[in-house]
Amino acid sequence: MPHLHDLNPRVSVDNVILGFDDENLNVLLIGRSLSDGRTDDVLALPGDLIFENENLEMAAERVLFELTGLTDLFLQQAGAFGDPNRLAKPKDREWLKTVRQEPDVRVITIAFFSLVNMNDYTPQPASFARSVQWVPIQDVGDLAFDHNRILTTCLKRLRETIAIKPVGFNLLPVKFTLGQLHRLYEAILDKPLDKRNFRRKIQKLDILTHLDEKQEGVPHKPSSFYKFNEIKYQKLVETGFDNFGF
Amino acid sequence: MPHLHDLNPRVSVDNVILGFDDENLNVLLIGRSLSDGRTDDVLALPGDLIFENENLEMAAERVLFELTGLTDLFLQQAGAFGDPNRLAKPKDREWLKTVRQEPDVRVITIAFFSLVNMNDYTPQPASFARSVQWVPIQDVGDLAFDHNRILTTCLKRLRETIAIKPVGFNLLPVKFTLGQLHRLYEAILDKPLDKRNFRRKIQKLDILTHLDEKQEGVPHKPSSFYKFNEIKYQKLVETGFDNFGF
Repeated sequence: MPHLHDLNPRVSVDNVILGFDDENLNVLLIGRSLSDGRTDDVLALPGDLIFENENLEMAAERVLFELTGLTDLFLQQAGAFGDPNRLAKPKDREWLKTVRQEPDVRVITIAFFSLVNMNDYTPQPASFARSVQWVPIQDVGDLAFDHNRILTTCLKRLRETIAIKPVGFNLLPVKFTLGQLHRLYEAILDKPLDKRNFRRKIQKLDILTHLDEKQEGVPHKPSSFYKFNEIKYQKLVETGFDNFGF
Repeated sequence: MPHLHDLNPRVSVDNVILGFDDENLNVLLIGRSLSDGRTDDVLALPGDLIFENENLEMAAERVLFELTGLTDLFLQQAGAFGDPNRLAKPKDREWLKTVRQEPDVRVITIAFFSLVNMNDYTPQPASFARSVQWVPIQDVGDLAFDHNRILTTCLKRLRETIAIKPVGFNLLPVKFTLGQLHRLYEAILDKPLDKRNFRRKIQKLDILTHLDEKQEGVPHKPSSFYKFNEIKYQKLVETGFDNFGF
């Protein structure tokens, strides 16, 4: 029988936490310290080996909490990454040698992702994370291991999901303008969306309640506020959009 | 350095091969032999441990070929399955003891799936597969390990994919009727679809070419044959349906 906190040396989890800050999409990255106290300049997704006695979802939650203090996120699996050379970059090799008992063993990682409102979470570095920061997606450079590839895959999965379900609507404040919703969709899809077309399609979904209230103190014509119809929204999350219509 | 054919004792792949036989959806299952020549009555997905030097996709292709002789399939990853108790059922334990060097070690499996026309493939059992058979989805009983869960997940993924892309259209003969296409979609989605509504939506996709040819020798009013417009079809596969329309 494995002990409760025995590590599985061959399987890890990595978390892609995407944060919307009312304007842009960001990803949560850690700077890592070597066990001898030195640091390197490589940013990485918060990830680590799993314990023998926990399932993959539990491992992802635990590792995220241990490295960043974040908790209570809805983590969705994006798949496994198992290139035999995924740990082969020199700086990664050096880091592994200082923190792993078996630094040469092949590790398969399972990626999880989540989309949150950045303002609701305050990450704090801990364990081997010497720093933790939100980085705008367009500013992400060369990450550790195969983490760029993992990030790209998770973004793709998010964009596919948003095409069939109204994910992300709940990242907005309780009362919001159509302009804010429009900006959220542009940030996630990383492309400009025609404003008039967008509004027409959103209205057609019939999940918004128009409020008898407008913006105040704005330099432009004040926009109306909306809120979600929770019941209709939940129904749409379950059934998905009509899309191809089957 | 690991040797070319060193097994990774902690990571396996499993393949969910879904076969359409012009009427129903089936899944490819193997009966397994114990290394002492006995057999058990448990059916399983074709799966096995990965080699240290191959990536996950290569492992899935190799294992599928070794157990069933099938080759040249487009395998898509459905995710990782890592419940610590996934190997705990008594018959599975017994089988593992006869075939594995470390039967007690925890194994994470990565699932792959593919949708094919059954008539194009003739599986042959080999290695520890004593038999291989296509089983209609609705007749699948209790499978080995967590294979029922894996099958369910893959079916869900397939249905999500078909909502955003025209997968599966290429399972039909070169010339086909709208009735055949309708039946394919009913089989994949496992529910009746209104015929008139279905035809309207398919026509709207604008990927079919109407042929100047009809069925012959059928007891009902002969239906027209269609073929795909390959260029428009490929474009739709890449862009996805207009669905929510972003």
